[in-house]
Amino acid sequence: MNATPLHEQFVSPFGWRYGSDDMRRLWSLAHRRRLWRRLWVALAEAQQHAGLVTAAQVADLRAHQDDIDLDRAHALEKELQHDLMAEVHTYAEQCPVGGGIIHLGATSMDIEDNADALCLREALSLLTQRLATVLAALADRMEAAADHVCMAFTHLQPAEPTTVGYRLAFTAQDLLADYHTLRQLAAEIRGKGFKGAVGTAAAYEELLHGTGLTAPEMEQRIMQALNLPVYDITHQTYPRRQDWLILNGLAGLALTAYKFAFDVRLLQSPPVGEWQEPFGSRQIGSSAMPFKRNPIHAENIDSLARFVAALPRVAWDNAAHSLLERTLDDSANRRAVLPEAFLATDEIVQRLGRLVQGLRVEEAAIQRNLATYGVFAATERLLMQAVRRGGDRQVLHEVIRQHSLAAWAALQQGQPNPLAALLAADDRLTRWLPAADIATALNAAQHIGDAPERTRRLAATIRAALA
Amino acid sequence: MNATPLHEQFVSPFGWRYGSDDMRRLWSLAHRRRLWRRLWVALAEAQQHAGLVTAAQVADLRAHQDDIDLDRAHALEKELQHDLMAEVHTYAEQCPVGGGIIHLGATSMDIEDNADALCLREALSLLTQRLATVLAALADRMEAAADHVCMAFTHLQPAEPTTVGYRLAFTAQDLLADYHTLRQLAAEIRGKGFKGAVGTAAAYEELLHGTGLTAPEMEQRIMQALNLPVYDITHQTYPRRQDWLILNGLAGLALTAYKFAFDVRLLQSPPVGEWQEPFGSRQIGSSAMPFKRNPIHAENIDSLARFVAALPRVAWDNAAHSLLERTLDDSANRRAVLPEAFLATDEIVQRLGRLVQGLRVEEAAIQRNLATYGVFAATERLLMQAVRRGGDRQVLHEVIRQHSLAAWAALQQGQPNPLAALLAADDRLTRWLPAADIATALNAAQHIGDAPERTRRLAATIRAALA
Amino acid sequence: MNATPLHEQFVSPFGWRYGSDDMRRLWSLAHRRRLWRRLWVALAEAQQHAGLVTAAQVADLRAHQDDIDLDRAHALEKELQHDLMAEVHTYAEQCPVGGGIIHLGATSMDIEDNADALCLREALSLLTQRLATVLAALADRMEAAADHVCMAFTHLQPAEPTTVGYRLAFTAQDLLADYHTLRQLAAEIRGKGFKGAVGTAAAYEELLHGTGLTAPEMEQRIMQALNLPVYDITHQTYPRRQDWLILNGLAGLALTAYKFAFDVRLLQSPPVGEWQEPFGSRQIGSSAMPFKRNPIHAENIDSLARFVAALPRVAWDNAAHSLLERTLDDSANRRAVLPEAFLATDEIVQRLGRLVQGLRVEEAAIQRNLATYGVFAATERLLMQAVRRGGDRQVLHEVIRQHSLAAWAALQQGQPNPLAALLAADDRLTRWLPAADIATALNAAQHIGDAPERTRRLAATIRAALA
Amino acid sequence: MNATPLHEQFVSPFGWRYGSDDMRRLWSLAHRRRLWRRLWVALAEAQQHAGLVTAAQVADLRAHQDDIDLDRAHALEKELQHDLMAEVHTYAEQCPVGGGIIHLGATSMDIEDNADALCLREALSLLTQRLATVLAALADRMEAAADHVCMAFTHLQPAEPTTVGYRLAFTAQDLLADYHTLRQLAAEIRGKGFKGAVGTAAAYEELLHGTGLTAPEMEQRIMQALNLPVYDITHQTYPRRQDWLILNGLAGLALTAYKFAFDVRLLQSPPVGEWQEPFGSRQIGSSAMPFKRNPIHAENIDSLARFVAALPRVAWDNAAHSLLERTLDDSANRRAVLPEAFLATDEIVQRLGRLVQGLRVEEAAIQRNLATYGVFAATERLLMQAVRRGGDRQVLHEVIRQHSLAAWAALQQGQPNPLAALLAADDRLTRWLPAADIATALNAAQHIGDAPERTRRLAATIRAALA
Repeated sequence: MNATPLHEQFVSPFGWRYGSDDMRRLWSLAHRRRLWRRLWVALAEAQQHAGLVTAAQVADLRAHQDDIDLDRAHALEKELQHDLMAEVHTYAEQCPVGGGIIHLGATSMDIEDNADALCLREALSLLTQRLATVLAALADRMEAAADHVCMAFTHLQPAEPTTVGYRLAFTAQDLLADYHTLRQLAAEIRGKGFKGAVGTAAAYEELLHGTGLTAPEMEQRIMQALNLPVYDITHQTYPRRQDWLILNGLAGLALTAYKFAFDVRLLQSPPVGEWQEPFGSRQIGSSAMPFKRNPIHAENIDSLARFVAALPRVAWDNAAHSLLERTLDDSANRRAVLPEAFLATDEIVQRLGRLVQGLRVEEAAIQRNLATYGVFAATERLLMQAVRRGGDRQVLHEVIRQHSLAAWAALQQGQPNPLAALLAADDRLTRWLPAADIATALNAAQHIGDAPERTRRLAATIRAALA
Repeated sequence: MNATPLHEQFVSPFGWRYGSDDMRRLWSLAHRRRLWRRLWVALAEAQQHAGLVTAAQVADLRAHQDDIDLDRAHALEKELQHDLMAEVHTYAEQCPVGGGIIHLGATSMDIEDNADALCLREALSLLTQRLATVLAALADRMEAAADHVCMAFTHLQPAEPTTVGYRLAFTAQDLLADYHTLRQLAAEIRGKGFKGAVGTAAAYEELLHGTGLTAPEMEQRIMQALNLPVYDITHQTYPRRQDWLILNGLAGLALTAYKFAFDVRLLQSPPVGEWQEPFGSRQIGSSAMPFKRNPIHAENIDSLARFVAALPRVAWDNAAHSLLERTLDDSANRRAVLPEAFLATDEIVQRLGRLVQGLRVEEAAIQRNLATYGVFAATERLLMQAVRRGGDRQVLHEVIRQHSLAAWAALQQGQPNPLAALLAADDRLTRWLPAADIATALNAAQHIGDAPERTRRLAATIRAALA
Repeated sequence: MNATPLHEQFVSPFGWRYGSDDMRRLWSLAHRRRLWRRLWVALAEAQQHAGLVTAAQVADLRAHQDDIDLDRAHALEKELQHDLMAEVHTYAEQCPVGGGIIHLGATSMDIEDNADALCLREALSLLTQRLATVLAALADRMEAAADHVCMAFTHLQPAEPTTVGYRLAFTAQDLLADYHTLRQLAAEIRGKGFKGAVGTAAAYEELLHGTGLTAPEMEQRIMQALNLPVYDITHQTYPRRQDWLILNGLAGLALTAYKFAFDVRLLQSPPVGEWQEPFGSRQIGSSAMPFKRNPIHAENIDSLARFVAALPRVAWDNAAHSLLERTLDDSANRRAVLPEAFLATDEIVQRLGRLVQGLRVEEAAIQRNLATYGVFAATERLLMQAVRRGGDRQVLHEVIRQHSLAAWAALQQGQPNPLAALLAADDRLTRWLPAADIATALNAAQHIGDAPERTRRLAATIRAALA
Repeated sequence: MNATPLHEQFVSPFGWRYGSDDMRRLWSLAHRRRLWRRLWVALAEAQQHAGLVTAAQVADLRAHQDDIDLDRAHALEKELQHDLMAEVHTYAEQCPVGGGIIHLGATSMDIEDNADALCLREALSLLTQRLATVLAALADRMEAAADHVCMAFTHLQPAEPTTVGYRLAFTAQDLLADYHTLRQLAAEIRGKGFKGAVGTAAAYEELLHGTGLTAPEMEQRIMQALNLPVYDITHQTYPRRQDWLILNGLAGLALTAYKFAFDVRLLQSPPVGEWQEPFGSRQIGSSAMPFKRNPIHAENIDSLARFVAALPRVAWDNAAHSLLERTLDDSANRRAVLPEAFLATDEIVQRLGRLVQGLRVEEAAIQRNLATYGVFAATERLLMQAVRRGGDRQVLHEVIRQHSLAAWAALQQGQPNPLAALLAADDRLTRWLPAADIATALNAAQHIGDAPERTRRLAATIRAALA
């Protein structure tokens, strides 16, 4: 593109750092050209059926379908100032027999816009595959931890207990919704079809006049060959709301990942300390500061998710301002927004996979937090049971209150929570409930409702959806 | 809410100016309270089944279900600093028998969040109904104008012809997609169900212990009574991504309306002049300046649509930051964003309906523009036909080019387009094509492909979808 | 506005719940009308100077300047379908002498747009005053806590120590920038002036022809009377980028508050527990669950800040699409966006003030966290000092590493950090450094650089700025 | 970065297509490394002053300051997993004498963050220079066209006349504001300075202990050498609101350009036809369709401006979530957002320059529109003058009304406006005003107020600002 060495130019982080090579290939110049050629071949095949072109011409085109030559194309583009026409000429030079009938009767957007639709579908499929892997891993993790009790937090304040698996299930439920959304988007992607400059297909009707093939029939043949559904009504392009819907699908996935990654960051903070990102041998972290492990995947996910969240608005604006039969103010920003949204989401999903698979659950910290905070929440159960057995509610409430305040003061000093011990040693309470029953009542592990069952049910649902 | 007269306070334009009274009622304080009471009754009914409350208690609640008393509730709220608990007390005062069991075992969000889901569903249904009316009118208009040829514009430049109906069909296709989206959203809205403070349903399990009814069974009974599906996994609230999906649905409708309204504004501009907003007897416009008709509905639609487009991002942020088992940073902005998004969209749809039904198509302007610009586009057909009959392509192209330049110069001076006449009088052309055939070839009305058929097909699709 | 009782309609939360009555008054219908009348009086005064109207007429207008009568105006509006003309008529009915010359030669936007500028300036001034109070309180708090050592966190991981005051100073520095920005915005607000329908002032020039007063002179007289600078170039309105700049100013303040409030929420989380929102006698929180204190102000701030952050984009769109000499697609959304942005920010600032003034710093928690985490960070200093006195770096590093791992294991179990004790008891270390020196080296309080001085310097800067 | 050929990967359009090579160089990897090295040299110089490093060491660093070797650095990065440390090692290998003291006592963000500030300042300066050129050209154009009368449009409806220069002045006034904003931003950019991991400068204080140089003095020396002001208070980075302010500055410029480009697109639409983008010999456009000129620069500007408008929100989010002493969720998106915002804006400014300099004003179209619409607006003046000379207002108004309706009907048929002729031929009017006076009264050229004077005044202001 120019002679300056790459390191003296701007190279987008989506050009190498973020996103997979597979995804990057889909958004490459070469892939785009190959899609164009695929469309030209399909067009010629349909025109052969109409008798407009010969079998030999089509065969010639087919033979050179993948022989893109970007050097030649760029040289021609400098002359022609039009990238698609430069590709037509490059291709034509390679096809002595069929070169002359490439792009016959077509407008640029009949080729480019259908190619875009194909590319978007491939990119969605790639993401969906990756997402399936993450979901499968998540189903395993949540099921395995379905009964693993831990403290739940509302307002970032300890509340009642939940389970590690149920917490993962919240993310899994959203992620499954994202998976269905992306699959549906891929299944429903439609191309513009072959409808010419303003969507009426007038030029094709003219061209096909007397051939026995109509314009809609020609379009149908081509789109079936591409296995690509078509918008029945378009102007010069497919309705740009399709871009917006797709970017919304990506932003939804980014949303799920963002919340999960933020939770990881909170839970990885040493004062809580319940979850840890996986870390390799390289990332041992300082042994002198053994807590020092930055949640690098989670921070990266949140950073990129925030970027993805900003992009649907650009697509909304494009669609909203595609005035009358089309204005071209979508073109420049689509070159950046569409690939970068997919590459950022691709990176997010890959890191999410690493997080889910490698997440370390720190049992000691979970037990510490349950011991510290779970017992407060459980005193209500204790009170109910003691009252049921004849205790005076007012008296017992005051007993609990006093010990709770003392326990809180101890916690503030960094000591373990003495509340269970204090309560089990108070005869105003033990006269109604034996110490063993007190311990049972205060056991948060009993206080998790049917969360484990629902967690397992969702795991099964996910497996069924992926099957 | 306070004693200052309304006109000395801020009254939101969505409080009176924009949106219908029907929609406003759904977002009123009173309606919200009625929904809460409906939930408390359903909860009591299920608890009666478990034997926790008596039939008489439930009957008492049911008898006063709609007797909201906001004065009393506000007085109590001042004391209690909690609007939901104030309503519990108000309701309880009205129910001597059942008052004591209102809200039994529930957390606030079990009531509020399900009420929100019901309200959102009602609001979506109201919008969907309105949208059906607009779609039906649009189907009629587009069908009636399916063959009505006019100039199409790309890049705001005259291109080839299209038809008025086909142009309307572009909007109709998007609007039908919006209709399906909103219906699907309404059908799929799910409540939180009854799952307590952190989503485990632990408190209900405790409460129902020994009754023979489980927590999930109790939830199922209530939600069936409300005919409201439920999220299987929640934390303290339903996943806030649901708000985001709904606001996206509204933003999609706003998008369709925005583009259409912008097109109206462009086409209503006198130099084009093809479309006019309906205007009543009051709005005669200056008779001295007969062209002076501001597109007030279209401008209003675009203004509100732009507001709606900004709101999904707030919901994305809420969902993204609903950390761990829920933080409350969604609450304050949801009070504004949800109702205002619906009221703005409601106004948009109503005005869109007025536009579609009353749109005036200015035949004289359409003919003028076709006559001015259509003939240029049609010269290509003329050339092809003359060449087919034996003319020399190079010579004829030069003939057309010269006359085109002369015609353009005339147009620039504000004169009618002389091109057709110039061509029909040039014997370098008439030697190949008789003047009558020239006129036919230049007739844009022949150059609209199968746009009319597809327009009619979409009209039929819409009618089927609405049936 | 209509007869339905308020509680059966939608009442925006900014109509009563959020924002102050003072701010609400500025955005009231009545205030708007008073501003209009003030502009009409100023216009008449300037026209009196030109000899177009009489002193008696002006005096009559001045006498009734504040006698707005919204009932009458609304009745007239129903007829006239134009709120400004209805006010003209209402005012005129009250002024038997001067009524006829109200609005002489003016277009609506000459009145409305200048009134908007005045209103925006008042709203900015009100906010700025509130902000000054918050800043003064913050300066006191940060200065008082300038030397109060606590753990700093990066990546939500404990890092090195900082001080409470320095942490507050980060917010204070941003808030001072917000203060300067809002003051500058208020000082620079410009009105449209009196330039007629397309900004040329042609109608005024016509009107003033032969009076000896020119249109720019008339404008200057009026704007000086209002003490309002003027855009030299306008079309029908002042450039709408001004709205965008103002909303950006509010979004900047919302940004500062958002980060601070989020920090409060994190620090108020009991596992960290260093900061607490103020809470009144009502909000004692459960004594059985003494840690249960929801950060309600901070969550509210973050919720509203997120709403404010979405609004500048609407203003950008308005300005971007104010096509040619003005389109009206700004009007509808400005009625909501401008007042709601100010009312939300007003609420944010008030709550921020409450947070800053009432913030409780929990000494026990700070000491606990320093004791738990500070010592790890300080081992590096210990190592350096021991090596300086002759110790072998490799050996000592291994000593520290072993004890650190043991200490971390203890922390994970919820025990106090034993690291300092372990190190002070290891003779491989005490042979180089006496135990007392080890304690000193591990004292985080010594490791805070010049943060206290810079904190105090900023406090002084703030006081100087507010003086 | 990897071995796949570039055309099989994603290459951002900002990597070659949009933005200048100058701007791209500022955002290159190589430039970034050079800035890092500049910071290390400045750090070493200050440390030499403190006696921590020797003159020979500093001289060695200085000698190799620009010898970046990205191949070596990438090889090392693979081992070290840290780009900045890889550069330290690469540099150190080149400096046998000084290599060991590179980065002495520093944290990564002391280097990276100050380098970012320097880069942002360079990028702002480059933009500002380009903008100065555009402004100068705009001042010339608007002054030259200050008296060039044309129709003004409100609501896209013809209104009163304005002048071409005054219309340009609206853009120029905004662009001058953008210019001042960008210059101010460049002047006020501040670095983090040298404050270590959490902003306290504790590590530097430790390092400098006993040298006679304090940490703030060291920072001051370095920052003076860089001529870069410094934030007095930071945590690990400079406050990220700075990024937001800068992106807002770019979005403001994008806003100005967007509105202007949209106006160009409207005015270039052939039914209006007053303005045309410059077009080269290549872009002759079809001579058969002489009106067919797509506004490619203007569409491109609007497309990129819309992208730029979406980006400040990402920076707001980064700043809002830079929690406690810093989280790293800004990092990934900043790599894309900052350079792409600048490169997009750079492209916008360059195209804006081409538009301004090459804009073709189509005199014929302007006269046609004035003749078509201007006369309607002018009838009010005619009426006033005839009444002044004794005519009956009611009668004359009816005369004008009738002729106006007839004239409008003629326009609708594509005929020139006959109104002036009809009025001049009606003796009900000529009895009061001779036909010549009628022609004068109807001459829109007289009806432009003091717009020309204000246009010229702004041109002078711009020139003074640029001087």
